[in-house]
Amino acid sequence: MSNPGTLDGVLAPVLTPFTNTLMPHLPLFVGLARHLMGQGLGLAPFGTTSEGNSLGVAEKVELLDALVGAGLDMGRVMPGTGCCALSDSVALTSHAVKRGCGGVLMLPPFYYKNPSEDGLFAAFAEVIERVGDDRLRLYLYHFPQQSQIPITHGLIERLLAAYPATVVGIKDSSGDLANMETMCRAYPGFKVFSGTERFILPVMRAGGAGCISANANIHGPAMLDLWRRWQEPEAERLQADLGVFRAIMEGMPLIAALKALTARRTGEYGWRRVRPPLVALAPEAEIQLVERLGQAGIVL
Amino acid sequence: MSNPGTLDGVLAPVLTPFTNTLMPHLPLFVGLARHLMGQGLGLAPFGTTSEGNSLGVAEKVELLDALVGAGLDMGRVMPGTGCCALSDSVALTSHAVKRGCGGVLMLPPFYYKNPSEDGLFAAFAEVIERVGDDRLRLYLYHFPQQSQIPITHGLIERLLAAYPATVVGIKDSSGDLANMETMCRAYPGFKVFSGTERFILPVMRAGGAGCISANANIHGPAMLDLWRRWQEPEAERLQADLGVFRAIMEGMPLIAALKALTARRTGEYGWRRVRPPLVALAPEAEIQLVERLGQAGIVL
Repeated sequence: MSNPGTLDGVLAPVLTPFTNTLMPHLPLFVGLARHLMGQGLGLAPFGTTSEGNSLGVAEKVELLDALVGAGLDMGRVMPGTGCCALSDSVALTSHAVKRGCGGVLMLPPFYYKNPSEDGLFAAFAEVIERVGDDRLRLYLYHFPQQSQIPITHGLIERLLAAYPATVVGIKDSSGDLANMETMCRAYPGFKVFSGTERFILPVMRAGGAGCISANANIHGPAMLDLWRRWQEPEAERLQADLGVFRAIMEGMPLIAALKALTARRTGEYGWRRVRPPLVALAPEAEIQLVERLGQAGIVL
Repeated sequence: MSNPGTLDGVLAPVLTPFTNTLMPHLPLFVGLARHLMGQGLGLAPFGTTSEGNSLGVAEKVELLDALVGAGLDMGRVMPGTGCCALSDSVALTSHAVKRGCGGVLMLPPFYYKNPSEDGLFAAFAEVIERVGDDRLRLYLYHFPQQSQIPITHGLIERLLAAYPATVVGIKDSSGDLANMETMCRAYPGFKVFSGTERFILPVMRAGGAGCISANANIHGPAMLDLWRRWQEPEAERLQADLGVFRAIMEGMPLIAALKALTARRTGEYGWRRVRPPLVALAPEAEIQLVERLGQAGIVL
């Protein structure tokens, strides 16, 4: 079991529910957060899966405050706070620290392509300096396929040298296992989270911290089981089972599919809503997804 | 000469100056806006050149209000209002309409890659419906190299069919002249702006509206001269001269270079500042740029 207030293990990038006017739906959000935390998961709201960049700063503040209001263990919460605008990243990160979040997960500014390493270093450094709070624990968010802005080892090394007590880890959503293993070995104490449950076992063997995967919204307990038992003989089988599950999900538009399954679990139709540019899962695709999961014997 | 309150001709994507704490510098911003409008240019603040995505919504509102406060002709202002978050795009677009802006220039939401046409249509449609103001004039912003999200002809046709009085034009920063010419011919009345001064002449010949180019911050009068005289014999020469100028600028990190030249023109050192992930122009590059412009006989 993960300890209260520590950020390791399996974190769920909490889905964001919307009302029928596409505004954030606070009660459904708190309900999911409570459900996931009750399963032993940490929370990583406002990431890619959460449609975090489709939310404004004030909306993210309101959603985060709703978690505080619900009495959840904020030490186990790692909100996404990296925006394109320096001022937005500072405001959100500062708010997260004040609300006791155990860490923040920070995308680099992602509008300008091919930024220099100097520019990216400055982007993170300016946020850290402006927040100016030694409680800040920053996890870098490496997702080059989506952000188009890789977090290179050169950048990590400069940040670790400048802010060793603040820059404490990374979520690697590149799907490149070799990169995760290299970071685990090259940067002792730096907490490497795999962005996919496919690599929980090898990343734990390399000394990683855990996993932050979209699918934890619906299948977190199986991931947590592997994370707890990675040194046991069953680990290979548990990892293989997660691979079967993930392969089914990868055939689908992921966020819409996760929302459809959450709608089924909770009986709340509204969970199916997404903000554009995403589109909700088509009913026929939803039926197909449920059939495939059933055929694979996966019970969510 | 462009007429007051109409959006055609040459628009400058106004650079955004920062204070020594990297906050928007209102007096310098208003000073540049007044200077550019005094040259006969329209204004397109908060685009790529303006570091628009490096500014928060409240900062853009404050900057726009400063233009209103300065008594500028807002009918000749086309602010960028397209953000990743639906709520941000609605807030900014609504504010721009209320402040009398002649139009808005709207990027698609650019975090999620490979969105469906349905999703992109919904992204624009939701903003239009929520703003709900028949004064809104929306120009699409096609800049696939930067946003990674192209505005396809299929999408344009759906938007024109649904919102013919609102979706009135496009800025094409793709550098693909054939695309601009095709749109000019395919969509009568749809105002096509070239995103580069290299194509003012062919785009005007195809029936386009004008040009919105970064370089108008420092060299707008030459562009406007060509735009006014495109049917005269000198037009080919004027276009060729602009090509020489642009080739020199393209060897530089463009936004930082434009800011350095603006700092030189105004004597205001602070113009050199950029927000990360951009970096200021190195002093040696600035000297090289000034030399090259001098050798080409270009007086700014």
